[in-house]
Amino acid sequence: MNANSSETSQVYLYDTTLRDGAQQEGISLSVEDKLKIARLLDKLGFHFIEGGWPGANPKDAQFFESLKLDPLQSARVVAFCSTRRPGLNAAEERMFDPILLSGAQWITLFGKSWDLQVIEGLQTTLQENLAMIEDSIAFLTQQDRHVIYDAEHWFDGYKSNPVYALKTIDTAIAAGAEWVVLCDTNGGTLPHEMAAIVTDVRQHIQTLQSAHPSIRLGIHTHNDSGMAVANSVIAVQHGVEMVQGTVNGYGERCGNANLCTVIPNLQIKLGYACLESAQLTELTPASRLVSEIVNLAPNEHAPFVGASAFAHKGGIHVSAVQRNPLTYEHIDPTALGNKRRIVVSEQSGISNVLEKANHFGFWLEKTDPASRQILQQLKQLESEGYQFEAAEASFELLIREALNQRPIFFELKGFDIYCRGQQKSSSDLLSSSATATVKVAVKDQEMLTAAEGNGPISALDAALRKALVGFYPVIADFQLTDYKVRILDGRGGTSAKTRVLVESSNGRERWATVGVSANIIEASYQAVAQGIEYGLLQYRSQLHNDLALSCSLSPSYAR
Amino acid sequence: MNANSSETSQVYLYDTTLRDGAQQEGISLSVEDKLKIARLLDKLGFHFIEGGWPGANPKDAQFFESLKLDPLQSARVVAFCSTRRPGLNAAEERMFDPILLSGAQWITLFGKSWDLQVIEGLQTTLQENLAMIEDSIAFLTQQDRHVIYDAEHWFDGYKSNPVYALKTIDTAIAAGAEWVVLCDTNGGTLPHEMAAIVTDVRQHIQTLQSAHPSIRLGIHTHNDSGMAVANSVIAVQHGVEMVQGTVNGYGERCGNANLCTVIPNLQIKLGYACLESAQLTELTPASRLVSEIVNLAPNEHAPFVGASAFAHKGGIHVSAVQRNPLTYEHIDPTALGNKRRIVVSEQSGISNVLEKANHFGFWLEKTDPASRQILQQLKQLESEGYQFEAAEASFELLIREALNQRPIFFELKGFDIYCRGQQKSSSDLLSSSATATVKVAVKDQEMLTAAEGNGPISALDAALRKALVGFYPVIADFQLTDYKVRILDGRGGTSAKTRVLVESSNGRERWATVGVSANIIEASYQAVAQGIEYGLLQYRSQLHNDLALSCSLSPSYAR
Repeated sequence: MNANSSETSQVYLYDTTLRDGAQQEGISLSVEDKLKIARLLDKLGFHFIEGGWPGANPKDAQFFESLKLDPLQSARVVAFCSTRRPGLNAAEERMFDPILLSGAQWITLFGKSWDLQVIEGLQTTLQENLAMIEDSIAFLTQQDRHVIYDAEHWFDGYKSNPVYALKTIDTAIAAGAEWVVLCDTNGGTLPHEMAAIVTDVRQHIQTLQSAHPSIRLGIHTHNDSGMAVANSVIAVQHGVEMVQGTVNGYGERCGNANLCTVIPNLQIKLGYACLESAQLTELTPASRLVSEIVNLAPNEHAPFVGASAFAHKGGIHVSAVQRNPLTYEHIDPTALGNKRRIVVSEQSGISNVLEKANHFGFWLEKTDPASRQILQQLKQLESEGYQFEAAEASFELLIREALNQRPIFFELKGFDIYCRGQQKSSSDLLSSSATATVKVAVKDQEMLTAAEGNGPISALDAALRKALVGFYPVIADFQLTDYKVRILDGRGGTSAKTRVLVESSNGRERWATVGVSANIIEASYQAVAQGIEYGLLQYRSQLHNDLALSCSLSPSYAR
Repeated sequence: MNANSSETSQVYLYDTTLRDGAQQEGISLSVEDKLKIARLLDKLGFHFIEGGWPGANPKDAQFFESLKLDPLQSARVVAFCSTRRPGLNAAEERMFDPILLSGAQWITLFGKSWDLQVIEGLQTTLQENLAMIEDSIAFLTQQDRHVIYDAEHWFDGYKSNPVYALKTIDTAIAAGAEWVVLCDTNGGTLPHEMAAIVTDVRQHIQTLQSAHPSIRLGIHTHNDSGMAVANSVIAVQHGVEMVQGTVNGYGERCGNANLCTVIPNLQIKLGYACLESAQLTELTPASRLVSEIVNLAPNEHAPFVGASAFAHKGGIHVSAVQRNPLTYEHIDPTALGNKRRIVVSEQSGISNVLEKANHFGFWLEKTDPASRQILQQLKQLESEGYQFEAAEASFELLIREALNQRPIFFELKGFDIYCRGQQKSSSDLLSSSATATVKVAVKDQEMLTAAEGNGPISALDAALRKALVGFYPVIADFQLTDYKVRILDGRGGTSAKTRVLVESSNGRERWATVGVSANIIEASYQAVAQGIEYGLLQYRSQLHNDLALSCSLSPSYAR
């Protein structure tokens, strides 16, 4: 447990994106969102995933219920809760009932370290606060739960009254906590204080280690001084073994420690063990996927995982970096699944395209004219607002088009959509309806259909499927599983360009497609239609060969 | 000059937003933009403002020309340039002509510290690099210019070959440089290395101080490891007296040191002198104004100056912070011109609601039945997917409704929207159009109008405004400035619930409103209509009183 004692000391990653991260203004996670993120981080190799505070709201309880039926593979799921309220005993504290019912074997209990918080926040006595820590932890460990003790406001508490602050963690350790996590709740601690206080605490803890040999320290920082990452790294260098943080640094106010920055610093730059190397290469895609799930634009300038983190602009930089990457790159971006990006350089663009095409099973040469065509089309489409990172099915269609391997399953001749909103009586809700008609051609046969929906896009989707299912019965198995809209230039208001991402499924696989237009309906049509097209491609061996017509550019990408 | 020797040591602020900041992808500054930013930072009290590299592009030369005619008040304007090229002598180096012509009395020359960069980047000898540093600086000081020497790649250079690296700065000092600035060009340095290396350099410099008593050290960091701010602060704590950085941390890749974070840390938290206290209160407005000038959305989560930096959400936090701000705030936000903000959300208790109501000028008591009604309605609406954090205008309308202070400016009787998409020829893009008709009633007068738009929502918005502008001419000044869509439960695909956030403006103020429905058009209508309603409220004293009808629940919230 000695700081820097070994080059491969393990650091445990504790993710609180689902609770502390979700406190960020503008983030509001559904149970589905939370499960998606939890499974992603489980696969990535995070050790602890805090799911929420069961009992505080119904969503958190549902999250834990879902995991009972379909548990995570390796991560420990953690329920979060405060110590019991003043004046009760722990067995009377009904707040613990849903915690125990949640099925979580690990529980993070937070309690007060700072005398000011005890007196002004909790409005109780210093002695009662110790009792609250003591019998809350003892009660939960008696129910065979593992307890992580989050010492809230640790640094302010220690600076204000170190004797009392240390008493609170002594109490937690004596009551059976397995981890003590020092929390910089207000985010006001600076690196030199972090180093000094963690050192003090480690020395203190060592005096208790004969009685409690397995007790370990963790760190939980906030970014109010811009120091959350630095403080987490410094705490580890001074002997802490767990880092609590969030993906992309989401969190209240200025956010929590960004684990996407902490992990590469610890593992690549300082030689600690956090994740397996193969998992580490999933860090960049995971960061972007979580930003999609919470529906916030990814921070392109984020260290390590941002799209611009290894982007080179100036000509001198570019040629130097090509001779020797060390000249302008502090680490190898591929270690994290990120990549170098040469801004305005076709040469590097080509290799990206080839790499991606290979990924889809198309083996292209640099000199192949199709490679250049794909690159040019890609650049043109990206400048119009398309984005293929999260829409790989659309990218595969684009490659197939350049290679003359994109069958035309159907052509849209036109659509009409009609929406009506009516107020029945003056105190009533508006009642609205939407109807769409669609005309498609399959080979030389035209088909006109109509369908209703909750809104214009579901009506259009329904009409399109209805028109096609007679030709392609497998479409009956397809469904839209996700639909996301982003306005690309907010300044244009409702006339701004809209990017629509659609996820489709055939019950076994999922794939994502993209559409862009100033008209949200047209953007949605592009994405929905490509979703059906890509789905049909997966069945092309079963489809009549004569339906796979000779290839030409599809309308949505034609220029 | 000893670290921490005095509570009021001066730290000199050196801004490079106009050069290094402008390297950020997506930033492109006009000469006017650069002048605006320079004058703003001059007023704020920054000591050095780097304007660019005269000669490298015409804009930079024009910037310096403009300042000759109308100089800054107190800041020193700095021109940036590299040491001469290999194989020339400085007097032959034509690159220096525009530098001397620029009129800048201060010149920052950057040179190589790292043997690898000299050999691989410059492709010259270590000896020639020293000669380049030496006679470039000597030449410029002979022309009575003050020289700041930026030791590029300092930290990588020192780690690779400390003897050579120190020789480069010895050479710069001997040639007449007044400042030596240690640059972490690749941003890969970690805090413990920063502390150690700056300490080494200071000890080394002290041996030269009898011959060069006025030589001083500066720091220039990049954020590739998420450490730019921490490293700048640590460097100052170890004796550096100048910090080079940018407003809002703009810069290539992951950005430069964010001076808006560095300054409060140094001045408020560590007691160094950077700016006058009165100037410090201008930091938040300056940060936001610069983000407007560079046309990037401000980072709401930025430490100290972000709109969310002192925002409180959870109910327990809110009541504690009201009793004693120290409980959840590490500093007083007003010291920087920022402010505390209470956010309304799912986790809200009654105290958030009251605080927010007070903020809007409604004085409610906890015991007031209206308070409870607002809280209940808030929770109900939030469980349906409404979110008021980013839609304060909608929240004010909700409060007014509970208090019977929500005038009805208009009622929607119904709308019809018609969208058509047609493919003209088989290889052609789809061409689409949208038309909306709207029927509204103002008092007892009905009005039916129609309008076209790029898509269904812009058509609806246009028709609604057209219907109302005859009754309320001020609507001509309103415009939609942002439009955001979030699908609340992706699993429902295109039938899922949709939340729309709309930002409106009257040219002076901006306000945001929200709508939720399974039909994106209905959700958009709610948000757009409330945007108009809230805008009208701001003019209610000027509107005819008889238009402000007796209050009743508006359709969008009625149950």
